[in-house]
Parts: sequence; C-alpha cells; structure tokens
Amino acid sequence: KRARELGIAPGVLTPGKLNSITDVNGVLVGHTTLIKADSIRTGVTAILPHNGNVFQQKVPAGIFIGNGFGKLAGSTQVMELGNIESPIILTNTLSVSTAMNAVVGYTLQQAGNENVQSVNALVGETNDGWLNDIRGRHVQEQDVLNAIKNAGSNVTEGNAGAGTGTVCFGFKGGIGTASRQLPKSLGGYTVGVLVQTNYGGVLQVDGIPVGEELKKFSFSNQLLNNVDGSCMIVIATDAPLDSRNLERLAARSMLGLGKTGGIASNGSGDYAIAFSTHAGVRIPHQPDSTVFTMPLLHNDYTSPLFMAVIEATEEAILNSLFMATTTTGYKGRKIEALPVNTIKELLKKYNHKP
Amino acid sequence: KRARELGIAPGVLTPGKLNSITDVNGVLVGHTTLIKADSIRTGVTAILPHNGNVFQQKVPAGIFIGNGFGKLAGSTQVMELGNIESPIILTNTLSVSTAMNAVVGYTLQQAGNENVQSVNALVGETNDGWLNDIRGRHVQEQDVLNAIKNAGSNVTEGNAGAGTGTVCFGFKGGIGTASRQLPKSLGGYTVGVLVQTNYGGVLQVDGIPVGEELKKFSFSNQLLNNVDGSCMIVIATDAPLDSRNLERLAARSMLGLGKTGGIASNGSGDYAIAFSTHAGVRIPHQPDSTVFTMPLLHNDYTSPLFMAVIEATEEAILNSLFMATTTTGYKGRKIEALPVNTIKELLKKYNHKP
Amino acid sequence: KRARELGIAPGVLTPGKLNSITDVNGVLVGHTTLIKADSIRTGVTAILPHNGNVFQQKVPAGIFIGNGFGKLAGSTQVMELGNIESPIILTNTLSVSTAMNAVVGYTLQQAGNENVQSVNALVGETNDGWLNDIRGRHVQEQDVLNAIKNAGSNVTEGNAGAGTGTVCFGFKGGIGTASRQLPKSLGGYTVGVLVQTNYGGVLQVDGIPVGEELKKFSFSNQLLNNVDGSCMIVIATDAPLDSRNLERLAARSMLGLGKTGGIASNGSGDYAIAFSTHAGVRIPHQPDSTVFTMPLLHNDYTSPLFMAVIEATEEAILNSLFMATTTTGYKGRKIEALPVNTIKELLKKYNHKP
Amino acid sequence: KRARELGIAPGVLTPGKLNSITDVNGVLVGHTTLIKADSIRTGVTAILPHNGNVFQQKVPAGIFIGNGFGKLAGSTQVMELGNIESPIILTNTLSVSTAMNAVVGYTLQQAGNENVQSVNALVGETNDGWLNDIRGRHVQEQDVLNAIKNAGSNVTEGNAGAGTGTVCFGFKGGIGTASRQLPKSLGGYTVGVLVQTNYGGVLQVDGIPVGEELKKFSFSNQLLNNVDGSCMIVIATDAPLDSRNLERLAARSMLGLGKTGGIASNGSGDYAIAFSTHAGVRIPHQPDSTVFTMPLLHNDYTSPLFMAVIEATEEAILNSLFMATTTTGYKGRKIEALPVNTIKELLKKYNHKP
Repeated sequence: KRARELGIAPGVLTPGKLNSITDVNGVLVGHTTLIKADSIRTGVTAILPHNGNVFQQKVPAGIFIGNGFGKLAGSTQVMELGNIESPIILTNTLSVSTAMNAVVGYTLQQAGNENVQSVNALVGETNDGWLNDIRGRHVQEQDVLNAIKNAGSNVTEGNAGAGTGTVCFGFKGGIGTASRQLPKSLGGYTVGVLVQTNYGGVLQVDGIPVGEELKKFSFSNQLLNNVDGSCMIVIATDAPLDSRNLERLAARSMLGLGKTGGIASNGSGDYAIAFSTHAGVRIPHQPDSTVFTMPLLHNDYTSPLFMAVIEATEEAILNSLFMATTTTGYKGRKIEALPVNTIKELLKKYNHKP
Repeated sequence: KRARELGIAPGVLTPGKLNSITDVNGVLVGHTTLIKADSIRTGVTAILPHNGNVFQQKVPAGIFIGNGFGKLAGSTQVMELGNIESPIILTNTLSVSTAMNAVVGYTLQQAGNENVQSVNALVGETNDGWLNDIRGRHVQEQDVLNAIKNAGSNVTEGNAGAGTGTVCFGFKGGIGTASRQLPKSLGGYTVGVLVQTNYGGVLQVDGIPVGEELKKFSFSNQLLNNVDGSCMIVIATDAPLDSRNLERLAARSMLGLGKTGGIASNGSGDYAIAFSTHAGVRIPHQPDSTVFTMPLLHNDYTSPLFMAVIEATEEAILNSLFMATTTTGYKGRKIEALPVNTIKELLKKYNHKP
Repeated sequence: KRARELGIAPGVLTPGKLNSITDVNGVLVGHTTLIKADSIRTGVTAILPHNGNVFQQKVPAGIFIGNGFGKLAGSTQVMELGNIESPIILTNTLSVSTAMNAVVGYTLQQAGNENVQSVNALVGETNDGWLNDIRGRHVQEQDVLNAIKNAGSNVTEGNAGAGTGTVCFGFKGGIGTASRQLPKSLGGYTVGVLVQTNYGGVLQVDGIPVGEELKKFSFSNQLLNNVDGSCMIVIATDAPLDSRNLERLAARSMLGLGKTGGIASNGSGDYAIAFSTHAGVRIPHQPDSTVFTMPLLHNDYTSPLFMAVIEATEEAILNSLFMATTTTGYKGRKIEALPVNTIKELLKKYNHKP
Repeated sequence: KRARELGIAPGVLTPGKLNSITDVNGVLVGHTTLIKADSIRTGVTAILPHNGNVFQQKVPAGIFIGNGFGKLAGSTQVMELGNIESPIILTNTLSVSTAMNAVVGYTLQQAGNENVQSVNALVGETNDGWLNDIRGRHVQEQDVLNAIKNAGSNVTEGNAGAGTGTVCFGFKGGIGTASRQLPKSLGGYTVGVLVQTNYGGVLQVDGIPVGEELKKFSFSNQLLNNVDGSCMIVIATDAPLDSRNLERLAARSMLGLGKTGGIASNGSGDYAIAFSTHAGVRIPHQPDSTVFTMPLLHNDYTSPLFMAVIEATEEAILNSLFMATTTTGYKGRKIEALPVNTIKELLKKYNHKP
C-alpha cells in the first residue's frame, strides 16, 4: 500500500489525481525490471518530459547537486543551456554508459533527427551493488529502449525499474512518486516527483521516529556504518519556469529528503532534476526566429511550488519504501521491506492523525 | 526554557557540554541588543572563530547558499580562497554596510595589522522589518564593535543580538544554538551551530506538526502568504576539514532547516557558513614557507559530521523559538512567542518521548 | 588619446557611436574623483542600467566570478534572482561598505520606494592602496551619491572615479570603456563594456608584446612580483537576454582580459557583471500579474555577442591605460602612464596595421 | 613542425624538456587513431595521471567549465570529492558512452580493484562530425583500452587520437601539448597542458592576426557562421595543490584559449581538467587512518602557476594547429592544415621576434 492509504499524508497541500509525477500533463514513466537468477536485481526507469520528440522540442530544466558523489551524465549541458533534450534515464551506477549509449542511439534514430550529430543523454544512477551483481553490468541497451517504449502514466513503485535492487534506511527502497496540486489562488500548478531511493540516515515517517524506534539507522552499529547510496530525484511541473527557477525548485527537494531522515552522506550521490512541461516554455531545436517569447512566473510566486516539491519529495520517498517488498539477491543477501505492521503500531503509539 | 529542557531532543547524537556553538573549542559569541522606544527591535551578533587575530590566523571555511535572496557580504572571497579572516557578523538587512564598515575598522586597528590594506568582512543578515523600524538603520558601528568585545562562551538565545526583531513560522524567532559531539569511534569531533531565524513554512517540532495543529503556516491564509524572511546558519567544528568539506558540511544544515518545516521560500536568504577551528588547519596570512602541511579528514569519514550538523541545526532553530519572548515593536505590531504550554500539550498528545 | 585614435582597434567588429558602454541605450555613467593632498587618489564610478527607478524596474543580470578574491557586495542575490535593482557602484576595496550604505540610502529615498525594506546594493572594488591612502577610507557617502547624480552618457576614462588610483601592468590604469555593434545580419545588438583596471600580467597591446619589450611584467623582478590587484568589468547589452545568458556573456569578458596579457593572479578580484537594457526584459518589482512574458534570444544566436564582449573588454582595458596619466600619490609613490611614444614605435616595429 | 620550431614561443616562461604534458612527472598519454575508408576520422586519447592504479591512488583534481555545451562524463564527482580515480579519456561526442564503458571495465579488472562497485570514468569530447561519420559511432571499447595501453611520454600531436577529425578556426585542429617550468625562485614546478582543439573565433598566433589576414574567422561569412565545436583542456602539475586551487588553475587556461582568438561560442563545450601529480597529495582509496596529512602550496604562491597554464595552453593549441595535416573525410569534405608558409610570411611581415 502507498503511504497515503495508511493515512500518512505529509504536508498541507493536496496531491494530484494519481499522486504521481504523471499528474503533470504529458509526463510519462516506464520501467524495465531485471530480476534474474540469484544475483541480478536491477533495472531501468525512463521519464519522458513529453510524448513528442524531446530533442526537437526541448524543455527548460535545472539541476541541483545535493551531493555530487554520483555519475549523472549530461548535467553540465543542462545547466549551461537550461534545457533537456532526451528522456531522463535512471539505472545502476555501472550501467550509466550503457544507458547513455542507448539514449544516443534512440535520439539519432527518431524521425526528424536525421541530421543530429550531438545528443545530451541525461542518465542518473544509484548503486544497487548490495543486492545486485553490479559488476556484472547486466543492463542491456535494449532494456533502456524498452523502458522508454513502455512509458505511460501508470507508475509502478517499489522494486521496479531502477529501484529493483536499491536499499534505503536499511530497508528495501526503490521507485516512489507523488504530486501536489496548488490551489487556484496560488496558481493551480502541479508539481510531481519521482525518486530512486538508495540512501541512509535516521528514518522518520511523517515526523514519527521510525529509525530510532526500530534501532536501525546510520552509525547505530557496525553494520549500518556504510549504508551509503544515493537518491535521484526527478521533478516535473506545469508552471512556466525557466532554468533558473527550475534549479531553485530542484534545490528544495533536498529538504523533503531531509524530512525523511536522509543525511546526504559522503557516498550518497544526490541529484535533483527539474523540468517544466508548460507548452509556452518549450525550446525548439531549430527556432523559427532568433528571438522567441516565453511566459515566466515571477520570482515572487514561486514559494508555493517550493513547498509543493518538499511535500511531494517526502511522500515519494515514503512511497518507495512502503511499496517495496523484501528482496533476496546477490550473495544471498536479504533486505527486508519496511515492516508495515510495526509502522502501523508506531502510527498509533504516536497518535498520528489518520 | 531551551527545547531540550522540555524533553525535545532531535536526533540520535549527544550535544556538547553547553549544547552551543561555543562547545567548539575557541569559538566565542557576543551580542548587542537594541531595544529602544516603540520601534527599534534589532541588534548585532558576532561569532569569533578564535580569540586571536583572525586576519593573521585565518580559518578554513566554506559557504553554502541555500537561497541567495540575501545580502551576505564577503561570500565570494571565502569561497575562492577557502578561508575566513574576520569575525562573522549577523545583523539586519539594511545594516550590513554599517557592520562591514565596523569590521573593516576593527581589523585595520588590530595589533599586527598595521599594513593591511584589504579586509574581507563577512556579514550576514535577516530582515527584521516587521518588528523593527529597519528603514531607520539604527545599528551603529559601535554596536558592532561592542558585540565583538562582548564575545564569550555564553550565548544568549531568543530575542538577542541579531535575533531581537526576527519572526519565524509566524512566531517570535531569534538566535538559537546547539551542538553535537561525535562518539570517539566516529572521530570524537564537535559540531556547533548558531542560527538567526526569520523564515516561514510549516513548523514541525521534533516531528510534531505544530504548525498544522495551530493552523499557522505559510499560505494558510492571506496574512501568512508573505512570511518571507531568511535564516543565517553559522557552523563551527574542530574536525580538520578544508574548505571543500566545510562547504559540504554547510550544505547539510539546510536539511536540518527542512526538518523544522522551513521551505526556503523565494524571499528567504538562507546561507550557511562553516569553519574549522582545528589548530592544524589554520592558514597564516604570512606563511613561513610557500608550502604548509595540513591534516585533513578523509572524505569517507565526513558523514557523521553531516548527521551532526543536521541535528544541531534543527535543535538550534528550535532553541531560537523556545527561548524567544513575545515582542511588540514597529507600528505596534505584536508577535507572540511560541505557546509553550500548548506545545507541551501537543508533546503529550503525540506521545513524544520524554 | 584613446587606443583607437592611435590605430589600435582590436577585433573584427565595429564599435558603437561613442565606443562606450553608454552606446547601449539608456546606460549612464558618473564619476566622483578624489584627488586631495599628497595621499588621496581614489573615487567612485556609478553605472546606471537605465535612468528610471531601477529598484522598481529591475534589469536581468548575470555575474561571472573570474577570481573571487574581492569584495563585490550583492553578488549572491543577483545570481539567485537574476536581476539588478540598484545602480552599480565601483570604488576602492575599503570603501565598499560606505558605497553600500549610500546606495541603500539612495534607494530608500527614491520616489516610489517608500515601503521598501530590502535593497541589494551592487558594489565592486579594486585595491588602489599603492597610490591612495586606502586605510584612511576617504570616500564619503556623498561622493557616491554625487557619482550617481553626475551620471551621463559621456564617460571620462583613465584617472577618473574608481580608477583614480589604480595600477595596471605596472602602469597607471583606471577606467576604460568600449563597445561593439553587431551587423544587422547578426542581430544588430550593441554590447558595451566599462572596466576598472588594477591588475598584472604581461601587457599585450592588440597582439604586440609591450610588456616583454619594456621588460615590465609580473614576476620579471622583485618589484613586480606582487602586482596583484583586480579588474571589475561591467557589461551592458540591448539584446534580450535572461540572467543565464547574461552570465555566459559575462564569462567571455575574461577572454578579453586574457588578450591584454592579464593572468587573473591569486590576489586579483576579477568580476564581470552583465545586464540587459532591452525594454521587454525589465522585471517589475511589483508585477501586474503572476506570469509575465519575456522576449529571449535563442541560445544559438548568442555567439556574436560573446565575440563582441571579448573585443570590447580588450579595447576598454586598453583605453583605461591609454587615457591614464602619470600619478604621484601615497608615500610619494609614482606610477608612470603607458609611454605612448614608445608604444607608437612598437606599433611601427611590429608593423601594426593602422 | 611545432610552433616553437618556427620561432613561435608565446609568453615569458620556459618550457619543460619535451614541452609536453608529459614533462610533469609520471603523466602518460596514449592515442588510438581511427582513419578508415572515406568517412572515419576519429579516435581516442588517454591521459594517465600516473602509471599505477589510479583508482586506489587518486589524484586531487579540479574542473572548470568554460562553456558547458558538452558531454564531459564524471565532472560532478570530481568537483564534489576533489579527485580523479580513472584515466582521462578524450574522444568524439557520440562515443563518450563507449569510452565510459571501457574505462569502467578497465578499472573493475585492474588488480586490486576486485571489490570495486563504483567507478567515476572521466570522459571528455569534442564533435568531429564535419570530417568524421560521427553518427556511425565507430569508436570501440577496445580502441579506448588500446589508447590506455599505448600511453607513454611521447605525445603525437595534430591528427592523432581524439584530434583525428577536429577542426579549429576553420583549419585542421587536433591534439596539441606544451609545458612550462617555473624558475626555482617561483617554486620550480612544472605545468603541462594537452588540448583537443575543435573551436572557432579569430585566430591569433602569438599576437599576429592570422585569422584577419587570411579573412577566415567566425561570422566573416555564411560558411563560418557555424564553426562551433569545443575545446578540451587537460592540465597536469607537480605543484602540491588541492582541488580548490586546481580548479582555479583550470579556470586560467581559458585565458590561454582567448589569446589564440577563441571565443567560447555557444556551441563550444570548453572544459578544463587539472590534477596534481605531487606524491604528497595522493588520496588513497582506502586510507590507513581517518586523517591524512597533505602538503599544500599557500594561495599566495599560485600566481606563477596561473601564468604558466595560460602560456602552455596557448602554445598547446598552436601546436595542435601547426602539427595537423590537411584532411579529407566524411562526404568528401576537406579541411586544410594551417598554411605554414603563409604564416611564416606573416611572422616576417609583423616582425615577429625569432
């Protein structure tokens, strides 16, 4: 069950219809989940900013680097030019190059891109090497292409796609998503978040000190001293923002991560990628004229979006945990799912509002 | 009473002796508090990295800009050269120039600085214009010099110094401090934090949804829509870190701010300044030789410090609120202190661990 | 005489009418020059993005930090919010606080700003402490206000305003300006640059190795080993650029500095500030609606502007040298003007195109 | 012939023995050059910081992004952790993923890395799509491994390795290298630079306006309007610098690029990577203790290194042009080598010092 079905509803704003990144108009998500034999527990997740040719119709974007111990490919061009020109791919650390290669091939072959000679593939990762034989590099280019092809508005959470083998707060993590829709008076915009969770800290569930109660948190004992990892955060909004304000939006997602008890440890590659799907801010690869006109939300009206991204990130992370299932993988290692019944008891103990 | 006296003890690590930034060896803090007539509610807080000549014996430092809508003077030189060469001063937005001028004068006149022709004054601020007649610019250079002269290891919290007129989550904010001491097995280092709180969001007290319970949070009604503001965060540690890892340490403090419910709104100038007091990492203004030797903590061992700064920031912010008192100021405006009795009831309601 | 009058015309593009930053529509420049007694050789230069209320009608802006060993006040807010809301002031290192204070006062008192409680004064500096009694801090607030009041389209170069006491490549430096106007086919935009030169390296004049010929360059002898200093670069354009592309434009100016033989030494605080005066990109302090519309030049068409800023920076720097005059100042120190007759001979020797 | 053999010796400092990046103790460079059929004109260049296991013995490093329109993989981790843990690979834009994959495989298989689960491959590129069938993605992983295996202290320049198909200022570019050795009085350190040149602007050769004389420069006519491209710059030094000062060193290389007439156009992905080979600053992957000791050059003594990197970059770029040969490639396109005889005449015309 998702967090909200258990009465866990962080924040004061309201989710969108699906409580998913795909509540943002046009955004699609697809997975390839690789579970094979005893040791392959990995996969690919693709996020498409819109369903057309993203290279020809780029979306404005910003990236915030919470902690740069990661291999995100494509970051510098997004930051320099302020836009994304490919699907966003998440996978495991050692398969970034495979995914990049697939995205380059995919883009070169799209209709309309016959003369394209430069593609900025945006590929993030976390390290699933505890449960997955990561050194085996089992992700194939076709797996990436399939994730793109599979993309739809329904997002499988937990052990799916790039979250198949990840570990979060010592429990099984994975993919999670959530959204917030602002009231009309604050603009009516939607903010959606998708996360790939694989990091440590001291788990808090909507304020309840779960990590402490379960005596399972970073540095609590030898075992957990090296619960490093990473968190990839992808953010979509239909608000008309340019790259500067999208980068600011991305930065706020780290506060949502903080609210779950994350500590952005040394080894955690924490990156947030934000883009706008607003039709008016699309950036054509080959513009009709040298000057184009963009609608832009004034700085003064961005704060509700910041609040929305914090809430949606917190809830997306919780969903990644609540939707994940106990997994045994590489070298017979077993990672338990979050103990939902115990959590329910803690919700009661702490008199959590229903 | 401080948060901890009420049983509010965020996190899993242990505070230092004073639970204050001054637990870090050598750090001194001084205030000048200006409460005059009906409309002056402002002041100055000085943080001294050590009690010698900071210009001659600089400390390595890093700055993280959580949100750059602020007037922090001196940031670029700290980031370029990796060190701090003056006391750190906090005051109100429109008095940064006065404080800068005072710090420049102070440094020029220190014994040993007779030939100094360049001083990088590091002066931060938040905007206390709701309770204080900020346009009157009532801070004088002497007030800044007094704050430096007054500096000691005892830190007054709440309505003191640069926190005299600030507002946080709609309640009276101010100055707060806290610290964490790592266990020997994790290095035994101390991390201390001092904050000047003046920002909005949805207040959470060690996980308890106080803002929601009190129906007092950003965007909850017209009144609170513009609770902008800022948070200055000053971090000291005795761990041997260079500017790169101090900047990383500074970045984590924003997660502590997030845990209190802060949203780093558009108008909130949120800056974190971190420095190391470790004797081995001092940087002489005039070195004996071109190459000097520095002990440095390896990246792999920084994560416990990151956890410590998150916890100490959260608690310092709570202290700034719990220690503040109801204040009436400019134009007769009144800002209530956090209602401690109500909070106590909420602690019970939510079965908060004592 | 200006460089171009001597046949020195770097680059391939054409200057604007005045070959000045004031060729960019609406930009105004004013100086206060302080030459008093034996030891005061300093001043203030003000650059106004337009002649209205800049706080109410902000201009988009970007800042590039070539080397952050400087005291530029206001940088973080410009970079975060992407705009400038005050006149840009240049002065000496130890008078930044005075200038800030003056700009704050000026802005608070402008008609229409009666309720303003936060002002981001943008104040840069270089260190004129060789010729000027900088520790005396002789710049007064009134000097800053006068520079603003004096602002017009005529820019005095050389020993004027903030360039009164500066030294560049061991010669008398100062204020210089230049501009480029793109041909219609490349957009027809104007780029103007104003510099305050106070740095070292190995002087090259439009490719001619003047520093080497005169045996006067950094590290050539004991005297020149410490020719540190700084260069402030202010860039205006009428092209419709947002802060992202203005920051990119600013970054290119360092290449122009490089072409004069500058080395951005450790002690040189080199900052470039770029803003757009295009009427369509103004950012109202209090917008009529939450979303506004901005015309923006597509990334693909920015390169000619980059070329223009490099050329204009190089020429502005040369103008600062060619227009400066021999100066005796603090402690009887004398800095010679560039020896124009020798340069003319070198132009012949190297067969410089007339 | 190399530039210096023609009497072209930019700057005032002296080159190292080979005038090559390999003058820096321990640095090795290898190429794989792919010239096949009519349309394959590409390759790989590998730079090894030292000849041991770079993953186990990392080198401190900094990256400066001159213009981020490029695909440099691995940048964020280098900037966050301050070190390089793999060979540096240069290739063409669409083969970055292949090279990444090869470097990951190479590192996983090195003796001592049996348990490694995370590798940060540092792979840069420029776009050789004018002369090379870049969409064919002809670089194979084995080509990358061969470049690493081939690495030695002899560096082939011009049409070699990753420079096989590149174009610079409208002429054939490629790989170039140069170095500077500081006099003992300035530290005696060596700075070496290797470039992959593929960019436009207005060519200047040691101050001589070659581009203007040949009427061949960006925006001079329709044909040259899109001479975009990129420049990768790799910098080695034996000075004991940490990542902060290495990043500053890297930033100065752009001034050397500027001196050749480069303009860092919109489409030019210009990145500079700097590392130190000093034995004392190596960073062990698995440290013996939590705190290690590093010798560090004091900030005040870095300026001569900055001057050295500017000079060496300028000369390395000239070498890439002077050593390249006329090339016919993809679609029968032909790019001429720099016309050396004409240049010699220009050297005479401009009375260039021999």
